[in-house]
This record gives sequence, structure tokens and C-alpha cells, in this order.
Amino acid sequence: MTIRTTVWGENVHEKKSKIVAELYPKGMHNAIADFLNHAEEIEASSVTLQDPEHGLTADKLASTDVLIWWGHAAHGEVSDEIVERVADNVYGGMGLIVLHSGHFSKIFKKLMGAPCNLTWREAGERERLWVTSRQHPIARGLPDHFELEQEEMYGEPFGVPEPLETVFVSWFQGGEIFRSGLTYRRGAGSVFYFRPGHEAYPTYYDDNVQIVLTNAVRWAHNPAERTLNVHDAPNIVVEEALEPITARGPKLHEDGEEGYR
Amino acid sequence: MTIRTTVWGENVHEKKSKIVAELYPKGMHNAIADFLNHAEEIEASSVTLQDPEHGLTADKLASTDVLIWWGHAAHGEVSDEIVERVADNVYGGMGLIVLHSGHFSKIFKKLMGAPCNLTWREAGERERLWVTSRQHPIARGLPDHFELEQEEMYGEPFGVPEPLETVFVSWFQGGEIFRSGLTYRRGAGSVFYFRPGHEAYPTYYDDNVQIVLTNAVRWAHNPAERTLNVHDAPNIVVEEALEPITARGPKLHEDGEEGYR
Amino acid sequence: MTIRTTVWGENVHEKKSKIVAELYPKGMHNAIADFLNHAEEIEASSVTLQDPEHGLTADKLASTDVLIWWGHAAHGEVSDEIVERVADNVYGGMGLIVLHSGHFSKIFKKLMGAPCNLTWREAGERERLWVTSRQHPIARGLPDHFELEQEEMYGEPFGVPEPLETVFVSWFQGGEIFRSGLTYRRGAGSVFYFRPGHEAYPTYYDDNVQIVLTNAVRWAHNPAERTLNVHDAPNIVVEEALEPITARGPKLHEDGEEGYR
Amino acid sequence: MTIRTTVWGENVHEKKSKIVAELYPKGMHNAIADFLNHAEEIEASSVTLQDPEHGLTADKLASTDVLIWWGHAAHGEVSDEIVERVADNVYGGMGLIVLHSGHFSKIFKKLMGAPCNLTWREAGERERLWVTSRQHPIARGLPDHFELEQEEMYGEPFGVPEPLETVFVSWFQGGEIFRSGLTYRRGAGSVFYFRPGHEAYPTYYDDNVQIVLTNAVRWAHNPAERTLNVHDAPNIVVEEALEPITARGPKLHEDGEEGYR
Repeated sequence: MTIRTTVWGENVHEKKSKIVAELYPKGMHNAIADFLNHAEEIEASSVTLQDPEHGLTADKLASTDVLIWWGHAAHGEVSDEIVERVADNVYGGMGLIVLHSGHFSKIFKKLMGAPCNLTWREAGERERLWVTSRQHPIARGLPDHFELEQEEMYGEPFGVPEPLETVFVSWFQGGEIFRSGLTYRRGAGSVFYFRPGHEAYPTYYDDNVQIVLTNAVRWAHNPAERTLNVHDAPNIVVEEALEPITARGPKLHEDGEEGYR
Repeated sequence: MTIRTTVWGENVHEKKSKIVAELYPKGMHNAIADFLNHAEEIEASSVTLQDPEHGLTADKLASTDVLIWWGHAAHGEVSDEIVERVADNVYGGMGLIVLHSGHFSKIFKKLMGAPCNLTWREAGERERLWVTSRQHPIARGLPDHFELEQEEMYGEPFGVPEPLETVFVSWFQGGEIFRSGLTYRRGAGSVFYFRPGHEAYPTYYDDNVQIVLTNAVRWAHNPAERTLNVHDAPNIVVEEALEPITARGPKLHEDGEEGYR
Repeated sequence: MTIRTTVWGENVHEKKSKIVAELYPKGMHNAIADFLNHAEEIEASSVTLQDPEHGLTADKLASTDVLIWWGHAAHGEVSDEIVERVADNVYGGMGLIVLHSGHFSKIFKKLMGAPCNLTWREAGERERLWVTSRQHPIARGLPDHFELEQEEMYGEPFGVPEPLETVFVSWFQGGEIFRSGLTYRRGAGSVFYFRPGHEAYPTYYDDNVQIVLTNAVRWAHNPAERTLNVHDAPNIVVEEALEPITARGPKLHEDGEEGYR
Repeated sequence: MTIRTTVWGENVHEKKSKIVAELYPKGMHNAIADFLNHAEEIEASSVTLQDPEHGLTADKLASTDVLIWWGHAAHGEVSDEIVERVADNVYGGMGLIVLHSGHFSKIFKKLMGAPCNLTWREAGERERLWVTSRQHPIARGLPDHFELEQEEMYGEPFGVPEPLETVFVSWFQGGEIFRSGLTYRRGAGSVFYFRPGHEAYPTYYDDNVQIVLTNAVRWAHNPAERTLNVHDAPNIVVEEALEPITARGPKLHEDGEEGYR
């Protein structure tokens, strides 16, 4: 079984910043797709903000099992229509992995229903990620903790809903902590937020980060057929009730009509 | 301590439908506010869609501890700006109780980040609500189950995120079940969804329903001061780090600048 | 990858009750193991209460990826020592699926930390299971609801902790509902409770029930290596701290000593 | 409304260790009860391991709204019978706050159904607690973080079930993090685990710790009447079914009999 994975990259800093361009000469999205393609059963491709429809056409999403999202400088340039399209695919069963600064992306804020804010500092300080759910599928093969020698700090309170599970919590040299790996389900879609990944540092070349993301792709994959019409709210008429009933009392709706939205 | 409660009523069917007008001559919002005003410590008022700014001015929300929302026919007429304002107050600590057809209101869908869809049937059938979390603050004083002789059916799957707690599940005569009482937290705000309340039936005159809503107002009340600036994401500069650190490595941001959104 | 599944059967009613003996001539445990063996990648065997060590030797558990538990009349005859052994394997990563009357088994009560009580009625009434988490891995391939024409009723309140996810809720002909499919994690082990399965009815021959249990085995399988020493609480001495610190202040413990239990 | 709070103290180190005796001359339990008694509506008393029935007679528990538990050196000396009694009161609605080394107490392990293990180091290092659920009732009146200059370290992975809510996460000077404030519900009882409180340090004199515990007592208080018979599993006979049904099919049980346990 192949897990068709699409890495969405904003691809802005790679062009504007010499630091990022040198670190990720093919772009962060391709760096991520590259190591995923070394994993068994995963087949990863990448698209960017600059592609037509940001690379997220209806066809592309329909053939994407897991979407990975990295954005930062250009959240506002992502079209609302495409955000809705991505959300509908998540509700229908597409997995979604949101990375780092993607906490402020339109798609993540929409799915969370919350501000998704935090505190931050770019000082190249040490981050140490601790596993809080030992042997969670996303933590498989990891030690109880691992370090990233240079990362941007994100601090709590992190304005997200209580997750299904907290998989990682980060320690920062400057004194903060952050819930770094959080799982959610939205409709049939599994959602994972993973904190590390500042574009000025070589985070996506780190072995443990690559293990986390490879695990996360497998975890987020829902092999069931994609559910369509994810907003449907069908009227079940009396004659089709599973147990025989007779309509009674006052009535505002006609049988089989569409409800109000 | 007084819990300042605002009941928001759409107030459309009360005017268009003779059935509803006769059942709730002062409007559903006032019927709800009335029984709440009999509870100790609760002080309830009502506003409607037709009021300027839908009755939800910045001042009104600032002085509302718990907002109750009933809407059905006119979800689309609620202004997006006011939905944002309500959401920001929830994030800041205002309690929110969403009733029945409010599952498709803009504010509920926004806070859930999910389709919030379901199946439905208007046949005046019997609904029996079962307590699934015995002695939960919202179920206080209730028997293990209670009945509403005539209600609209809502059926699963209900397209909402997994709740913090499932407090009630409904049995329907026609063969469906529905998770009828669900709790969430969004920011500092507690959110409760309660299923019953079709406008063609006398649901809000039912003793047990009144107990649930009175309990829910108390449960949803956050006595802490309302948090403002709920979207802030402050940059913590190196000099103000809680543990002494030295900035190192490459840098994309200037100290103290606002991050990208 | 093979999922080594062990079905634990109490095997008491099969011997005492003609009804059960005729329905499950090879025992319920073998009926369950049989259909699981038709699923790809699953290799199921069965053991019973009457086997030495109830069939749950250290070796057997070490080579079991997912354990399925059906017990009813003889919960009290299961040895406490073996319950501890099973629990430790769950904490270490073994999946556990508890069926029907197993809600009162020692192992389920231990893992839940709660009374696990409910109401019940044996009247051969209709049960209809509704999916509340569409396309959940455990609900894969199922319609939104399915029926068991004759089942024992279990009613709420069900005295269990709030689950990670509610996957199924049952409707009963006599007027009750029940949260029929609940997921938990305990340590590295995934736990699923599934309600149907009264021994007087042919529940385990039902196609949809077989789909649920086959899905559940896959869902509960943790491919990571079994964690041993699941109760360890190591003392990290100052010299081995990840960040350099100096011990200071008063001290009750000697370096490297075992803590109190 | 008065919240009757009982502080259970092991009271062992206070007698054996000069350090602890000097720090808490009246015992830790009395130090905690003392500051709680300064809070409005809270009326706190203390009992110890050495009291008859450990001070936890049926009467004492029946008149306790919230029980606070501090134990460390003598977990094994607590009688199993009394642990059951405490658990039954929690299921019935008594709040329970477990402190620090109480993570390994019999009552906490029983209610969690999990090993509750962790890593630890006694080095008087700095702990900084971060609020992860802003304005949660238990965090009311606190800044986003506060420090304890000297504490024992507890590190992840913490072997507990996923909580309802994570309220605090701790940063430690030596490089670890820990989920320091976790909420659970067991039956009608609310349970809060709070990490700080090593007996060699003046933690319970800290203003912020006192705010947390005062808030936690209010949060854990369930004003509903205590549920008795928390293990009951009543047989609902056919004649008393809420919807008329006729018994059919084979039957193993007699009407009204007690089920198996």
C-alpha cells in the first residue's frame, strides 16, 4: 500500500533569504519530500504557493493521502477557496501534518477553531523534545528525548484546543516549554501539529525529526475511501425511519426538504 | 456573584410561524431568559438578530459572562464581523451555550473547525436523554434519563470534534441516537452544545431542560477577568529570556518585530 | 507483517449451557479466532481460563501483539498475578480488546480505574450500533449504522472514564442507549471496549461485528518493540543531567537510590 | 456554601528528618490546611496515616468534599481496604487532589489504571511552571508562568493516561520537562494531580502554589449529593422497560437476578 504524500511549501524565504536558500537549495518542501521518499510505502511529491491553485487542485487533493504544510511569511496569500477545499478533504479522510510556523496558517486556524497563538524568540537556542506518550505510533523508534541544537523558541500558552493526545513537549534553553506534538481528528481526517522547523536552521536534516515525520505520515494515513459531501445533512423522512413511527404534532418543514444553514 | 447571561435569539420563526408564535409569544429567547432569571445568581437578558449589531455590541459582550445561542432559519444573516467578535470573547473567557439548530450557526462551526452536520427528521417523536457522565455539573439534580415527548430527531454521525466530555446521549423513537450534550473549551471559554429545542415544540418549558440549561450557565461561567488581545503572539527578546542565553546562528527577524500571520 | 492475536475465552458457559454449546460448539474464543484468521496479516490463536496460567504465560503474552478478552461468569477465578502480567504487557505495548461482559473483568476494571458498571436486560431485543466517528480506523468499511436483531441490553450510565474517542453508540429497542465502542491508551498499549457479544446469541457470526473486530485488531497493534520494566522510575543523578547543574539545598535521598513506592 | 476539605498527610518524614521537621513544624498536612483555611468558603482539616483507619473513616469521607493526598515514604503502609473506600467516595463525587510523590500512592495508581512512573532527581534545581490552559479555573489569578527556586525534578515520560486537560507543564534547570497539572474525572469525582511539593523545600509556603491548590479545591468540589452504591449494575426487567418490548430468544439469566462479577 502506497501512502501518497504531498508536501506543500510556501517557498518564499527560500527565494528571499540567502540563509534559507543555501540551507535548502531545492526548497524546504523538496527537502522534506526527499527523505520521505526513502521510507517504505511512502511516495512524496511537493507543490508550492506559486503553483496554479497553489498546487492544490481538486485532483491533486483527491489523490493525496497525507498533506504536509509548511508556511510562514505568506499565510495571507493563500486563497480562502483553497483553504476550504483542503479542509473538506481533511473532513473526508485526508491526513494533515502542520509544521512549525504553520500554526498561524489559515488551514490550521480553521481546523482548530482557536487563535493558535504563542510566544516566540529567534535566538538559535537549544530545544529538547521529550516524548510524553511512550511508543505512540508517532514516537516509534525514538529515544525518550532528542535535541535540536539550534531552533526558534515557541512558548506556552499555545492557543489551541486540548488535543486528543500530547506526544511531545519541548524544553527550551531560555526557560520556556511548548507542547510540540499534538494530535487531533477532524471528521475522518487525522491532524498532527509538529513544532520544530524554523527555516534558518537545518532541522529537516535531523535524523529524529525525519523519524517523527515519517511516522506521522503513516499515522495520519486513513486507508478508507475519501468521504465526499462532507457537509451533507440529510432529512430522513418518516417513511424511511428505521423503526416504524407516525408523524405527529406541528411541523415547520416539508418532507425531504433541505434544512436551514 | 452574579452570572450575567445573554440569550441570543434569531427571532425569525416566532414572527413567521403561527405555531411558534403561539408557543413562545414573547419569543424563545425571552422564554429562556425568563426561567434563568428564577435561578439564584443568574441575571439573564435577551437580544436578537434584528437588534443593531444583532444586540452583540462590544460593550454587551464585555458584560456578558455566558452567551446562549439559538438560531435556525437565518444563520447566513449573522454578520461575519460579529461572529469574530463573539469568538474573541469566547477565547477570552466568555461561556457559550449553543442550542439545537445552532449546530449550523457560523459561531459554532467556527469554534468547532468542523462541518457540524447530522441527519434529521421532524416527526414529533419521543426523545429520551441519558446521562453518560453521572453527577457532571451540567447533569446535577437530574435523574439518569428524562424524556421529551415530542422532539425533532437529530442523528449521528454528528460532524464535530471529539468533545472533552459527553454528558448526554439521546435515544429516538425512530431508531437513531445522538450525542446530545457535549463540552469543549476554546481558549479560556467553556462551550456546551445541547441538542433539544425545536421551535415547534414546548421544549424550553420542560423542567429537566431548564435544569440542564441552568446548570450549564453555572458550569460555563469563568469568573476570571476576560482576557483581551487573544490573538497576541509576542516576541520575547533574548535580553528578556527567563534563563540567560546568547543569540547565535543565522537570524531572519529583527528583535521585537511582529511575526508573520 | 503478521499481527499475532490471542483470543482469551472464559469457556464456562460453553460447557454449562446447552444454548451456548450449540451456538458455539468450538467455544466463543475459537469462533472469534476463526474469522480473524481469514483476515490478511492476522494470525489468531485461542487460550482459556482452564489452561495452565489461564493460557497467559509470560512467553505467550510476549508473543501476543493483540489480546482479545471475553469473560462473564468467572471473572473472580482469574488470578490476580496474571491480571498484573496482562496489564504490564498492555503498558508495554500489547493491544487489548475487551468484549461485552468483560466490562466487569479484573483486567478492564484495573486499566480503567473505575467501577465499569451499567444497567442490563436479557430480552433478545434489537440493538442498532451507530458510528459516531465516521471512517475511524475501527469503523472502516461499515455503514453509518448496523443492527443485531437479538442482543442483551446494556444501558448508561456506563461507569468508565471519558474515552479518547467514542466510535459507536448503541440504540436499544427497550429505550436505552450505550456507548458501545470506546478507545483508550494505557502506557504504550491501545485498548478498545466493544459492547456486543452476549453468549446466548450468534453475535460473533455477524458480518459487521467481524469487520469491527478485525479493524480493532489492526488498530490496536503497536508494531514498536514491547517496553519492559514498565514501572521503572529511574533516579537521574546530577552528574548525568542533560544541562549542567550543581546540587544545592537539603537532600533526603542518596544519589542513585531507588525512590519510595 | 462551605467546601469541607481534608488534607491527608503521611507524616513520616516530618518525624524522621530534621530538615522536614524544621520546615514544616506542624507537618505538611497542617501547613496545607492552614492556608486553605484562609480562603473563603473552604474549611480544611487534616488527618494522617497514623490516625485510626488513617483518619479516613466512612464518616470522615462522607463529610469530605475534597480530599488532598500527600504521601511518599509509606505508600505501602496504607491499607487496601481504605484505598477502596477512598476510591468509592471519589466515584461518588468526592474531589481528589494528589500531590507530588503521591503519583506512586495506591489511590492514584488505582484511579489511573497505569504505572504512574517517571524519572526524578533531588538537586534543589529551579522549576518553572507554565500555564498551558490560560484562565483554566485551576490557573485563575496566576501569571503565565511562575518559578520555584528549589524543587525535586520529575521528568517525562510520566506513565499516566491522557488527561482531560493539561493545565501546567514544568521546565527544569537540568533539562527535563513534566506535565505538572493534569485533570481527570473518575465517576462523579474530579481528580487533579499537581507535581510540586518535595518535603525538603518550602514549596507549600509559595504564594502561587497556594493559589493553585485553593483554585483546585474549588474546581474539584462537586456540590451534588454523594452517589452511593457506585458499583451497582441493576437488571432492568422486561416489564419495566421504558419502551414496551417482549422478551424473545434464549435466556441465561433469571429476571431480576444479579449479574456476574
